Amino acid sequence: MIAVDTFQTYLQNKIAYIEENLIPALEKQGVPSSLYESMKYSLMAGGKRLRPMLVLAVLEALDKPIERGIPFAVALEMIHTYSLIHDDLPAMDDDDLRRGKPTNHKVYGEATAILAGDALLTRAFSHIAEAYQVHSDVSPATIVGLIAELGKRAGAKGMVGGQMADIEGETKQLNLEQLEFIHQHKTGDLLIAALRGGGYLAEASEAQMDALTRYGVCIGLAFQIQDDILNVEGDAAELGKAVGSDADRQKATYPSLLGLAESKARLVSLIEEAKKALVDAGIEHSALSPLADYVRNRNK
Amino acid sequence: MIAVDTFQTYLQNKIAYIEENLIPALEKQGVPSSLYESMKYSLMAGGKRLRPMLVLAVLEALDKPIERGIPFAVALEMIHTYSLIHDDLPAMDDDDLRRGKPTNHKVYGEATAILAGDALLTRAFSHIAEAYQVHSDVSPATIVGLIAELGKRAGAKGMVGGQMADIEGETKQLNLEQLEFIHQHKTGDLLIAALRGGGYLAEASEAQMDALTRYGVCIGLAFQIQDDILNVEGDAAELGKAVGSDADRQKATYPSLLGLAESKARLVSLIEEAKKALVDAGIEHSALSPLADYVRNRNK
Repeated sequence: MIAVDTFQTYLQNKIAYIEENLIPALEKQGVPSSLYESMKYSLMAGGKRLRPMLVLAVLEALDKPIERGIPFAVALEMIHTYSLIHDDLPAMDDDDLRRGKPTNHKVYGEATAILAGDALLTRAFSHIAEAYQVHSDVSPATIVGLIAELGKRAGAKGMVGGQMADIEGETKQLNLEQLEFIHQHKTGDLLIAALRGGGYLAEASEAQMDALTRYGVCIGLAFQIQDDILNVEGDAAELGKAVGSDADRQKATYPSLLGLAESKARLVSLIEEAKKALVDAGIEHSALSPLADYVRNRNK
Repeated sequence: MIAVDTFQTYLQNKIAYIEENLIPALEKQGVPSSLYESMKYSLMAGGKRLRPMLVLAVLEALDKPIERGIPFAVALEMIHTYSLIHDDLPAMDDDDLRRGKPTNHKVYGEATAILAGDALLTRAFSHIAEAYQVHSDVSPATIVGLIAELGKRAGAKGMVGGQMADIEGETKQLNLEQLEFIHQHKTGDLLIAALRGGGYLAEASEAQMDALTRYGVCIGLAFQIQDDILNVEGDAAELGKAVGSDADRQKATYPSLLGLAESKARLVSLIEEAKKALVDAGIEHSALSPLADYVRNRNK
């Protein structure tokens, strides 16, 4: 077991390690400076770095060097960042603030924000291909597997499809099943890609891959339930974005469909299920265990 | 030499072959239907299919089976299509018509158009990874090389960077060098990716790769000069889009900077240079030769 204060230090160290690898992964030479600045602005705007963190935690859990996970971890953060830039656009969620800062299009304009998102998405794939080409511990077949996994989870069947269903759902009465479809894809799929990608890189067994996937499904939903709860009970200053906005927009959420108490109970049981998956894979004494608690207890 | 009418048949056959492979490459199961329809609408909206055509022509020129090029060719057309969807958005070029049909956002709305572009871009990479994984003639190392090449040419240093420079250039007086930077990246880079990707798949020699790259640089610029000329002299019905719009917007073009006669002379010399590259690579008796003429003579 990792104590809470030790885990805070763990998180800080990992965030620092991830962040020092983000900027060098961007192309700069030959890139129009406004495009580069816009990409860098959103990539370095903070955040929990949860997806890269999961990649490194899987490698650690399976006794592999974490530096092997860095190119894939960085690519995931690029894809997560592009999705936030595009989601914030006026034609989508039309948000002015993200992590307490003006959203990308508020600073750079809509055209640049669209292109910065496109370029981050493109760079995610080319960075994996380029960075691992010179990495002796990662075979070309593994690189191809990583790209296939990431593309599947980030695309029309995954994250983009989830965002599409979310936008269409805004004008409808959703039931719990439809809400879970949205969250499983919009949020869960990229977390699963992080875990499974980490598994590929760590040469996990098939049973371990299954367990990592189950863990990902659980923390993906848990993450979203906590998001919904924070939109009811959270602190706007801490969150860096408005609270109460879901209720104002009459948006379907776990609290609106299940009530707050039942939502919290579901959150607890999902975290238990996530930890059970770790036990099944024999990796419960790793940072993945406190990371599950962190998803549940986070206040931003 | 291939006669002109034979070449027309060649183009039609190749377009049919390419188009029958586009839809099966899209994911459908588990994709929100509006997203799928929007992706399909733009992917199947016609067009010259020049990028996939170049991939197949390189394989033919180097005596390799063209079916080996299909997944990469399809991915290129997905990336070209996404770039058109995003370029047409109100925040970018704000176009209502593309190839004589309403643009994607006019039919499906802006949010769906942004997401359809994102999903096509993502699918391009995952399709290459998935489709070639089961292809015995293409090694994992070649797949990684294709993805690195495509990502570099399509991203911030390539096509997206060219579009960024184009948008920024609209409010400036551009000189010829700046105009060529825009076109080399916005149009040329994806053509070069097609040629070099075809070269990788055909196991081209380094000298042949260099020649293919030079050919790509020349036809990329030639393509854009002809585009500019058609905007002055072309037929709107044939083109499926307005003519005279560049002059109305006081946009920097080859005719506005060099005059029409000098632009046409430059077009001729670029096509000659492209053909010389083919001679150097020993592949001048291939469809790449009439394809260069086609870039110059096209009327849409």
